[in-house]
Amino acid sequence: MSFNTFGHLFRFTSFGESHGAAIGCVVDGCPPRIPLEAAEIQVHLDKRRPGQSRFTTQRQEPDAVKIMSGVFSDDRTGGQVTTGTPIMLLIENVDQRSKDYSDIRDKYRPGHAGYTYDVKYGVQDYRGGGRASARETAARVAAGAIARKIVPGLSVRGALVQMGPHKIDRSRWDWNEVDNNPFFCPDPVQAKFFESYLDGVRKSGSSVGAVIEVVAEGVPAGLGAPVYAKLDAELAAALMGINAVKGVEIGDGFDTAIMAGEDNADEMRIGNDNKPVFLSNHAGGILGGISTGQAIVARFAVKPTSSILNPRKTVDRYGNDTEVVTKGRHDPCVGIRAVPIGEAMVACVLADHYLMHRAQVGEGTAWPFAPGR
Amino acid sequence: MSFNTFGHLFRFTSFGESHGAAIGCVVDGCPPRIPLEAAEIQVHLDKRRPGQSRFTTQRQEPDAVKIMSGVFSDDRTGGQVTTGTPIMLLIENVDQRSKDYSDIRDKYRPGHAGYTYDVKYGVQDYRGGGRASARETAARVAAGAIARKIVPGLSVRGALVQMGPHKIDRSRWDWNEVDNNPFFCPDPVQAKFFESYLDGVRKSGSSVGAVIEVVAEGVPAGLGAPVYAKLDAELAAALMGINAVKGVEIGDGFDTAIMAGEDNADEMRIGNDNKPVFLSNHAGGILGGISTGQAIVARFAVKPTSSILNPRKTVDRYGNDTEVVTKGRHDPCVGIRAVPIGEAMVACVLADHYLMHRAQVGEGTAWPFAPGR
Amino acid sequence: MSFNTFGHLFRFTSFGESHGAAIGCVVDGCPPRIPLEAAEIQVHLDKRRPGQSRFTTQRQEPDAVKIMSGVFSDDRTGGQVTTGTPIMLLIENVDQRSKDYSDIRDKYRPGHAGYTYDVKYGVQDYRGGGRASARETAARVAAGAIARKIVPGLSVRGALVQMGPHKIDRSRWDWNEVDNNPFFCPDPVQAKFFESYLDGVRKSGSSVGAVIEVVAEGVPAGLGAPVYAKLDAELAAALMGINAVKGVEIGDGFDTAIMAGEDNADEMRIGNDNKPVFLSNHAGGILGGISTGQAIVARFAVKPTSSILNPRKTVDRYGNDTEVVTKGRHDPCVGIRAVPIGEAMVACVLADHYLMHRAQVGEGTAWPFAPGR
Amino acid sequence: MSFNTFGHLFRFTSFGESHGAAIGCVVDGCPPRIPLEAAEIQVHLDKRRPGQSRFTTQRQEPDAVKIMSGVFSDDRTGGQVTTGTPIMLLIENVDQRSKDYSDIRDKYRPGHAGYTYDVKYGVQDYRGGGRASARETAARVAAGAIARKIVPGLSVRGALVQMGPHKIDRSRWDWNEVDNNPFFCPDPVQAKFFESYLDGVRKSGSSVGAVIEVVAEGVPAGLGAPVYAKLDAELAAALMGINAVKGVEIGDGFDTAIMAGEDNADEMRIGNDNKPVFLSNHAGGILGGISTGQAIVARFAVKPTSSILNPRKTVDRYGNDTEVVTKGRHDPCVGIRAVPIGEAMVACVLADHYLMHRAQVGEGTAWPFAPGR
Repeated sequence: MSFNTFGHLFRFTSFGESHGAAIGCVVDGCPPRIPLEAAEIQVHLDKRRPGQSRFTTQRQEPDAVKIMSGVFSDDRTGGQVTTGTPIMLLIENVDQRSKDYSDIRDKYRPGHAGYTYDVKYGVQDYRGGGRASARETAARVAAGAIARKIVPGLSVRGALVQMGPHKIDRSRWDWNEVDNNPFFCPDPVQAKFFESYLDGVRKSGSSVGAVIEVVAEGVPAGLGAPVYAKLDAELAAALMGINAVKGVEIGDGFDTAIMAGEDNADEMRIGNDNKPVFLSNHAGGILGGISTGQAIVARFAVKPTSSILNPRKTVDRYGNDTEVVTKGRHDPCVGIRAVPIGEAMVACVLADHYLMHRAQVGEGTAWPFAPGR
Repeated sequence: MSFNTFGHLFRFTSFGESHGAAIGCVVDGCPPRIPLEAAEIQVHLDKRRPGQSRFTTQRQEPDAVKIMSGVFSDDRTGGQVTTGTPIMLLIENVDQRSKDYSDIRDKYRPGHAGYTYDVKYGVQDYRGGGRASARETAARVAAGAIARKIVPGLSVRGALVQMGPHKIDRSRWDWNEVDNNPFFCPDPVQAKFFESYLDGVRKSGSSVGAVIEVVAEGVPAGLGAPVYAKLDAELAAALMGINAVKGVEIGDGFDTAIMAGEDNADEMRIGNDNKPVFLSNHAGGILGGISTGQAIVARFAVKPTSSILNPRKTVDRYGNDTEVVTKGRHDPCVGIRAVPIGEAMVACVLADHYLMHRAQVGEGTAWPFAPGR
Repeated sequence: MSFNTFGHLFRFTSFGESHGAAIGCVVDGCPPRIPLEAAEIQVHLDKRRPGQSRFTTQRQEPDAVKIMSGVFSDDRTGGQVTTGTPIMLLIENVDQRSKDYSDIRDKYRPGHAGYTYDVKYGVQDYRGGGRASARETAARVAAGAIARKIVPGLSVRGALVQMGPHKIDRSRWDWNEVDNNPFFCPDPVQAKFFESYLDGVRKSGSSVGAVIEVVAEGVPAGLGAPVYAKLDAELAAALMGINAVKGVEIGDGFDTAIMAGEDNADEMRIGNDNKPVFLSNHAGGILGGISTGQAIVARFAVKPTSSILNPRKTVDRYGNDTEVVTKGRHDPCVGIRAVPIGEAMVACVLADHYLMHRAQVGEGTAWPFAPGR
Repeated sequence: MSFNTFGHLFRFTSFGESHGAAIGCVVDGCPPRIPLEAAEIQVHLDKRRPGQSRFTTQRQEPDAVKIMSGVFSDDRTGGQVTTGTPIMLLIENVDQRSKDYSDIRDKYRPGHAGYTYDVKYGVQDYRGGGRASARETAARVAAGAIARKIVPGLSVRGALVQMGPHKIDRSRWDWNEVDNNPFFCPDPVQAKFFESYLDGVRKSGSSVGAVIEVVAEGVPAGLGAPVYAKLDAELAAALMGINAVKGVEIGDGFDTAIMAGEDNADEMRIGNDNKPVFLSNHAGGILGGISTGQAIVARFAVKPTSSILNPRKTVDRYGNDTEVVTKGRHDPCVGIRAVPIGEAMVACVLADHYLMHRAQVGEGTAWPFAPGR
């Protein structure tokens, strides 16, 4: 993880600005001979794509991905497969609406990265947020679509579990509902409520935050590279690195602070297949930075969009007090579109650690359930 | 951050097990000609050191650090200084109490890393937790003591702000109180209460979690390497990678999810010295993954120690159901000793990014407050 | 340096196959506010471009580079400048001549990477050498063009100093001659001879090797990161990693093995500007892995193209003995086009270490010529 | 490879100065459950150890290595094994002879790293060369001893093939002779000659260079990570990074420059076991940066020690012309002791790439000798 490259062995390097010619990434380290078609990537990009409901920005971007390298197909491969060489994924920008940027060119919008990019680099492509735009996350979703194919049997799913102060009712959790509403919400009742709630937020020119939960199932036990590339540490970096994220939890997260030791620790029993089973999952599938084999559960908080219609106090680039209003196309709740992004980042971390584990320990299980080992 | 190395340019590699000969680390990439005496490191180790009150484990470890390389002193250097070469810090283990490990040798303690280390590696030094022991964190504190000296004017301080369900009263926050109680608690009233509360927990054979807050002041604006080595992403990894941590927040953290956009974004004004000032700090000093120049505020949740006296259901290494009781010396609230560790990790991230920023942008400020730039 | 990424801080990740849609790279870590136009990159690509004389492959590739991200221009920047974000450089493949690959599809050409790619990955894009094609080196030349702009005052020049058994006469070395012949040869007399010599090689259907020398002037003293990122070690990797390179030397290289200690060590004197000068440069500008301030001199040997018209014994993919003839468009001496590639790799290493040095030591010189330091 | 860490997945970080308390390294990423005793490391250190004949420095260092972490032994492991955690190897310095350094403290010895370390860092531990001393290479040999155990069936052997201008006669090559003379020379006749030759060099107060060849057998085909972590590029960095090395070759190296294409490319035939065999090994076991399965052959040139008794012109730290004579204990031919070091570096690169390959491609062979793949 350095600069614009994510990952150790399964790694991707992203590029592009919101209003430049294109965005995309180079995925490196992917195992060879994995079947891969652009359509498999596109399905995930389509979930993140803006302009699909009145609750996300009205920018119209098809986000059509092209695989520019790293795959091959002939009559011996039986369809297009990865070759082990870098996979370049290109997404051309289409709707870089020509607009007047004179306002935000020189004024810093509170809560935006424009100020810090300018302080750091002394120059920035301010159009639409430039490199700091959430548009960059399309590259992550594309890379994540490849990552999903690396760990056999892996399933990574995300859901919005809170919008503003309103949490879902977990007793109504139904994964099938996630695709039935524009919020990726697993609780159909609360999803209905979110419609009117977010309409109100949107019409008032304001915005609101959210909490997203990502669950990974089918994760083999043993993934993680202690002590400083612990699986939970890497997930925390992956999720905190998503635009606008301000908090990350694994398992019971901050609630563990109020728990007693005997309530927090997940007890074990031998299951029907003679493998250990856990009687609960407060740990969120990770102990000591290594996966337990249970579902990995991570949550992250997304702050409200700072691009709002209400005027805010700020300064300009030349040292003057001023006010700013954001007029562009924006999301009243950016947390919604963070769901497929969170899934992608979790998938990338797991694929990376799957390869890291295979490197150090090999493919055979190290599982110790045998006397004499 | 990979395996046992932390950091990009300012990096340390730690080694050692709880009951082995020694623990320590090699600090690499440290700038040359920084005055450095072992005593400066020892002062931080002493804060983390066990056995200082009845509220931490009774293991007696002096944690005396030796600088084995990377420093030099002659009449031209005016005292011992770093040379730019690797600094090896050695802490010998003293109190590896000889005890009977037959119980935990084969039984997995719920909530412990023993199970996952065994699943991953097929072997482990189980004595006292081996490599997964919190003892490893002494190496982090030692490295952090050096990191603190790299960023001019940097101050990194931590405090315990919640124990179990009991939060401190922030209106009583007094940094001077932190060293006046065994909890690193900045609220003297709550600190008093924690004494009796934790005595009760301890005597009941149970344990309890905590929340720690770390505040870094004097951080230059502009630190952070977007997009995948964002300052907040790196802090999240650093803190989530501390033993027993299950959640991390920057600034208002999870509370931002319930905020409206206009309440969350920190407004700006030009201050008396013609530099921008922020009117609030919901962002915790980071925007777009880059420091704003405000105080950086991070919080993390520490789960309750899973080593408790009460018997728990578990399995053994050979596939049998069984029960386990942890008899060793343990902390009723491991969160307490996490305070100096959290400080150290934050200091290491900031030192690392100070060097990373200097590499890419140079020493002169890129600050744009001048017409024509 | 891992997989398809080169460099630590100034780093580029290349992608693309010989006969795919495009090749290119993402340059990351570039300092901001460096003026950069595509034409500055194109001039170097044009030197490497095939089909410019009868002595290089007749493939017709314009190698037109597009800067797809990482630059910005408005009335405040005074022309296009880098922004500190990833610079994606795209070179579309134009002349992927449709041909019959049935022969090389299944037969391994001796001396080619086709065999090892197949053994490693079990699949490959064999068209034109795929990822192992020298075509990938265009990405290096493009990245190198940016690297050249990072170290102030840096000049990196290369020359062909030997073709087959024929060395140049160093007493006739004239940098101005390098661009006056199709061989990048600094000796005009030998360049004339090379014409007829290589014509003979070409017409005989054979090929021949070469030795290239790269000289970097204006390198500040102090660059290099001992012990395992020594400047010479990194140059060795950079040059040995160019296709078909089998040997690398710094300074007097293998000749130092036959020298006596007093002949090899470069003596020093204080020069007119009170700075030390060296009385010779056997070391090639590097001592202990750190630049001395003298010119850095590196040489590398390029093996003869293995793609030749004469039939060779080989095996096919299915375990049968067979023969193979390479019919495609090829270079009779690939070493020629290695000159701009060698320059690029040296420039990238120096830019990278310039940033690495600035990170650890800062911008001020650490030069100790002052009593009391 | 950065600063003082070598390797990607199998990596070691070395520390220590020539006349400090200790030297050593932390080996990270080693697979678990590999039997490992200190004695297995010691046998290689003993080969590199100084003071074993009149042809190496008379410094008396036992170079006794202690394994401080990362191994475990109980009745289930059947002897001491690696645990997958960091292995710290400690070698205490014993013979840091107290001497008068006033001469070299301020004067730069021509050909030494003292000048460049001072220019870079502004300070250095000059005693015995400090960090730039060949003493650091003991850490490499120790790490290499572990690396040798990672690749099943791997054999890495080195030999001195040239001293000064005198090459060995390859027709007399006998690996068994290497341990029968103080030069690691496989040609017993030439070894005899070297005795008198080097005695003459030593008595004249001069020094001489050498060429070392390292041969690795049992290397699986398919190792190497193109394009920028090619196996040959990594070997080049590993060997060029050894103190005093100025040139590196793979296979026929610089001789390939004078070869014709048909002479250089190694032809293939199907062998008796239905696996491909090569009819020659000009490539030195590597094509396209990936191992072919043949023996890997690398050579490197070691310059003559610059520490000689004859006075040399130089400057001092304060800007004055002066002369310097090196009086300490030194090697008349440092190339001799470079043999075990070269072996170690090659073993480390191969172990690293063995793990890297396993990560990306898995343990099963990707060998394509089957119709339909």
